[in-house]
Amino acid sequence: MSKTIFERIRDREIPASIVFEDEDVIAFRDIDPQAPIHILLTPKRVIPRINEALSSDKELLGTLLLKAAEIARNQGLAENGYRLVINNGPDGGETVPHLHCHILGGRTMKWPPG
Amino acid sequence: MSKTIFERIRDREIPASIVFEDEDVIAFRDIDPQAPIHILLTPKRVIPRINEALSSDKELLGTLLLKAAEIARNQGLAENGYRLVINNGPDGGETVPHLHCHILGGRTMKWPPG
Repeated sequence: MSKTIFERIRDREIPASIVFEDEDVIAFRDIDPQAPIHILLTPKRVIPRINEALSSDKELLGTLLLKAAEIARNQGLAENGYRLVINNGPDGGETVPHLHCHILGGRTMKWPPG
Repeated sequence: MSKTIFERIRDREIPASIVFEDEDVIAFRDIDPQAPIHILLTPKRVIPRINEALSSDKELLGTLLLKAAEIARNQGLAENGYRLVINNGPDGGETVPHLHCHILGGRTMKWPPG
Protein backbone atom coordinates (compact mmCIF):
# COMPACT_ATOMS: atom_id res chain seq x y z
CA MET A 1 0.00 0.00 0.00
CA SER A 2 1.37 3.41 -0.89
CA LYS A 3 2.24 5.85 1.85
CA THR A 4 -0.02 8.71 2.80
CA ILE A 5 1.35 12.22 2.27
CA PHE A 6 1.75 12.46 6.05
CA GLU A 7 3.86 9.31 6.14
CA ARG A 8 6.04 10.83 3.44
CA ILE A 9 6.44 13.97 5.58
CA ARG A 10 7.19 11.78 8.61
CA ASP A 11 9.83 9.92 6.60
CA ARG A 12 11.34 13.17 5.27
CA GLU A 13 10.50 12.23 1.68
CA ILE A 14 8.71 15.52 1.13
CA PRO A 15 9.38 18.79 2.91
CA ALA A 16 7.14 20.34 5.54
CA SER A 17 7.43 22.98 8.21
CA ILE A 18 7.66 20.64 11.17
CA VAL A 19 6.88 22.27 14.52
CA PHE A 20 6.91 19.25 16.85
CA GLU A 21 7.97 15.65 16.77
CA ASP A 22 8.40 12.86 19.28
CA GLU A 23 8.17 9.07 19.18
CA ASP A 24 4.39 9.06 18.86
CA VAL A 25 3.35 12.07 16.79
CA ILE A 26 4.54 14.62 14.27
CA ALA A 27 3.11 18.11 13.70
CA PHE A 28 3.65 20.49 10.80
CA ARG A 29 2.09 23.63 9.35
CA ASP A 30 -0.87 23.23 6.98
CA ILE A 31 0.15 24.27 3.46
CA ASP A 32 -3.25 25.97 3.01
CA PRO A 33 -3.66 27.68 6.39
CA GLN A 34 -7.13 28.76 7.48
CA ALA A 35 -5.91 30.83 10.43
CA PRO A 36 -2.67 32.65 11.33
CA ILE A 37 -1.58 29.46 13.07
CA HIS A 38 -2.81 26.25 11.47
CA ILE A 39 -0.97 23.06 12.35
CA LEU A 40 -1.70 19.43 11.53
CA LEU A 41 -0.91 16.91 14.23
CA THR A 42 -0.82 13.28 13.24
CA PRO A 43 0.19 10.01 14.90
CA LYS A 44 3.25 8.50 13.26
CA ARG A 45 1.49 5.15 13.20
CA VAL A 46 -1.30 5.34 10.64
CA ILE A 47 -4.91 5.16 11.75
CA PRO A 48 -6.88 6.05 8.59
CA ARG A 49 -9.55 8.02 10.45
CA ILE A 50 -11.15 8.21 13.87
CA ASN A 51 -13.93 5.82 12.77
CA GLU A 52 -11.24 3.15 12.24
CA ALA A 53 -9.64 3.59 15.66
CA LEU A 54 -9.67 0.52 17.92
CA SER A 55 -9.86 0.34 21.69
CA SER A 56 -6.16 -0.60 21.55
CA ASP A 57 -5.56 2.90 20.11
CA LYS A 58 -6.94 4.60 23.22
CA GLU A 59 -3.59 5.63 24.66
CA LEU A 60 -2.37 7.00 21.31
CA LEU A 61 -5.60 9.02 20.94
CA GLY A 62 -5.19 10.44 24.43
CA THR A 63 -1.60 11.31 23.56
CA LEU A 64 -2.83 13.06 20.41
CA LEU A 65 -5.10 15.43 22.38
CA LEU A 66 -2.48 16.07 25.07
CA LYS A 67 0.13 16.88 22.41
CA ALA A 68 -2.33 19.16 20.61
CA ALA A 69 -2.66 21.22 23.79
CA GLU A 70 1.10 21.17 24.33
CA ILE A 71 1.76 22.40 20.78
CA ALA A 72 -0.88 25.11 21.18
CA ARG A 73 0.91 26.27 24.33
CA ASN A 74 4.27 26.20 22.52
CA GLN A 75 2.73 28.34 19.79
CA GLY A 76 1.49 30.90 22.32
CA LEU A 77 -2.17 30.04 21.77
CA ALA A 78 -3.15 28.98 25.29
CA GLU A 79 -4.22 32.39 26.57
CA ASN A 80 -6.35 33.59 23.64
CA GLY A 81 -7.50 30.12 22.70
CA TYR A 82 -7.73 27.81 19.72
CA ARG A 83 -9.87 25.19 18.02
CA LEU A 84 -9.12 21.50 17.45
CA VAL A 85 -10.82 19.80 14.48
CA ILE A 86 -10.85 16.17 13.35
CA ASN A 87 -12.59 15.40 10.04
CA ASN A 88 -13.96 11.95 9.29
CA GLY A 89 -15.14 10.99 5.80
CA PRO A 90 -16.60 13.13 3.02
CA ASP A 91 -19.16 15.13 5.05
CA GLY A 92 -16.42 15.91 7.56
CA GLY A 93 -14.07 17.23 4.91
CA GLU A 94 -11.43 14.52 5.38
CA THR A 95 -8.77 14.89 2.68
CA VAL A 96 -5.96 12.53 3.76
CA PRO A 97 -6.71 8.99 5.03
CA HIS A 98 -4.29 9.35 7.93
CA LEU A 99 -5.86 10.55 11.18
CA HIS A 100 -4.90 14.13 11.97
CA CYS A 101 -6.02 16.89 14.26
CA HIS A 102 -6.13 20.48 13.00
CA ILE A 103 -4.95 23.08 15.51
CA LEU A 104 -6.25 26.53 14.53
CA GLY A 105 -5.57 29.80 16.31
CA GLY A 106 -4.32 33.35 16.09
CA ARG A 107 -7.76 34.66 15.19
CA THR A 108 -11.27 34.33 16.63
CA MET A 109 -12.77 31.19 15.15
CA LYS A 110 -16.37 31.57 14.01
CA TRP A 111 -19.48 29.46 14.59
CA PRO A 112 -20.66 27.17 13.06
CA PRO A 113 -17.39 25.34 12.63
CA GLY A 114 -17.81 25.04 8.88
CA MET B 1 -17.62 25.87 43.24
CA SER B 2 -20.87 25.86 41.32
CA LYS B 3 -21.55 23.11 38.84
CA THR B 4 -21.16 23.59 35.11
CA ILE B 5 -24.30 23.26 33.02
CA PHE B 6 -22.96 19.91 31.81
CA GLU B 7 -22.59 18.64 35.37
CA ARG B 8 -26.19 19.66 35.98
CA ILE B 9 -27.23 17.68 32.89
CA ARG B 10 -25.11 14.74 34.10
CA ASP B 11 -26.82 14.92 37.50
CA ARG B 12 -30.29 15.18 35.92
CA GLU B 13 -30.86 18.61 37.45
CA ILE B 14 -31.74 20.07 34.07
CA PRO B 15 -33.20 18.22 31.10
CA ALA B 16 -31.30 17.31 27.96
CA SER B 17 -31.74 14.95 25.06
CA ILE B 18 -29.21 12.35 26.17
CA VAL B 19 -28.04 10.03 23.40
CA PHE B 20 -25.29 8.08 25.18
CA GLU B 21 -24.02 7.55 28.69
CA ASP B 22 -21.59 5.23 30.39
CA GLU B 23 -19.36 5.44 33.46
CA ASP B 24 -16.90 7.83 31.80
CA VAL B 25 -18.85 10.11 29.48
CA ILE B 26 -22.26 11.54 28.71
CA ALA B 27 -23.49 12.82 25.35
CA PHE B 28 -26.55 14.93 24.54
CA ARG B 29 -27.92 17.01 21.68
CA ASP B 30 -26.76 20.62 21.40
CA ILE B 31 -29.68 22.96 22.12
CA ASP B 32 -28.51 25.24 19.27
CA PRO B 33 -27.62 22.67 16.60
CA GLN B 34 -25.35 23.72 13.75
CA ALA B 35 -25.97 20.59 11.68
CA PRO B 36 -28.80 18.03 11.39
CA ILE B 37 -26.94 15.98 13.98
CA HIS B 38 -25.03 17.99 16.58
CA ILE B 39 -24.11 16.23 19.78
CA LEU B 40 -21.96 17.31 22.70
CA LEU B 41 -19.83 14.63 24.31
CA THR B 42 -18.32 15.40 27.67
CA PRO B 43 -16.40 13.45 30.31
CA LYS B 44 -18.41 13.10 33.50
CA ARG B 45 -15.35 14.12 35.48
CA VAL B 46 -14.73 17.81 34.84
CA ILE B 47 -11.65 18.93 32.97
CA PRO B 48 -12.25 22.65 32.31
CA ARG B 49 -10.68 22.63 28.86
CA ILE B 50 -8.09 20.69 26.88
CA ASN B 51 -5.36 23.14 27.91
CA GLU B 52 -5.95 22.08 31.54
CA ALA B 53 -5.71 18.34 30.81
CA LEU B 54 -2.91 16.50 32.64
CA SER B 55 -0.94 13.47 31.52
CA SER B 56 -3.00 11.52 34.05
CA ASP B 57 -6.06 12.35 31.89
CA LYS B 58 -4.62 10.57 28.87
CA GLU B 59 -6.82 7.49 29.11
CA LEU B 60 -9.98 9.58 29.60
CA LEU B 61 -9.07 11.70 26.55
CA GLY B 62 -8.53 8.58 24.46
CA THR B 63 -11.88 7.30 25.68
CA LEU B 64 -13.48 10.59 24.65
CA LEU B 65 -12.34 10.23 21.03
CA LEU B 66 -13.25 6.53 20.85
CA LYS B 67 -16.73 7.28 22.24
CA ALA B 68 -17.15 10.15 19.78
CA ALA B 69 -16.61 7.71 16.92
CA GLU B 70 -18.91 5.14 18.54
CA ILE B 71 -21.69 7.72 18.94
CA ALA B 72 -21.21 8.87 15.34
CA ARG B 73 -21.64 5.26 14.22
CA ASN B 74 -24.74 4.87 16.40
CA GLN B 75 -26.16 8.00 14.78
CA GLY B 76 -25.56 6.60 11.30
CA LEU B 77 -22.82 9.12 10.48
CA ALA B 78 -19.93 6.73 9.80
CA GLU B 79 -20.52 6.30 6.07
CA ASN B 80 -21.08 9.91 5.01
CA GLY B 81 -18.80 11.34 7.64
CA TYR B 82 -18.73 13.92 10.39
CA ARG B 83 -16.58 16.52 12.10
CA LEU B 84 -15.29 16.59 15.69
CA VAL B 85 -14.54 19.99 17.24
CA ILE B 86 -13.01 20.94 20.59
CA ASN B 87 -12.92 24.65 21.46
CA ASN B 88 -10.40 26.04 23.94
CA GLY B 89 -10.67 29.60 25.26
CA PRO B 90 -12.16 32.72 23.69
CA ASP B 91 -10.59 32.47 20.22
CA GLY B 92 -11.73 28.85 20.04
CA GLY B 93 -15.31 29.72 20.88
CA GLU B 94 -15.40 27.86 24.20
CA THR B 95 -18.67 28.61 25.98
CA VAL B 96 -18.78 26.14 28.89
CA PRO B 97 -15.69 25.50 31.07
CA HIS B 98 -16.21 21.74 30.98
CA LEU B 99 -14.28 19.95 28.24
CA HIS B 100 -16.58 18.75 25.47
CA CYS B 101 -16.30 17.48 21.95
CA HIS B 102 -18.82 18.59 19.33
CA ILE B 103 -19.93 15.84 16.93
CA LEU B 104 -21.44 17.39 13.79
CA GLY B 105 -22.90 15.53 10.83
CA GLY B 106 -25.86 15.02 8.54
CA ARG B 107 -24.65 17.69 6.14
CA THR B 108 -21.40 18.48 4.33
CA MET B 109 -19.29 20.54 6.69
CA LYS B 110 -17.57 23.51 5.07
CA TRP B 111 -14.00 24.77 5.20
CA PRO B 112 -12.59 26.70 7.01
CA PRO B 113 -14.00 25.22 10.18
CA GLY B 114 -15.28 28.55 11.44
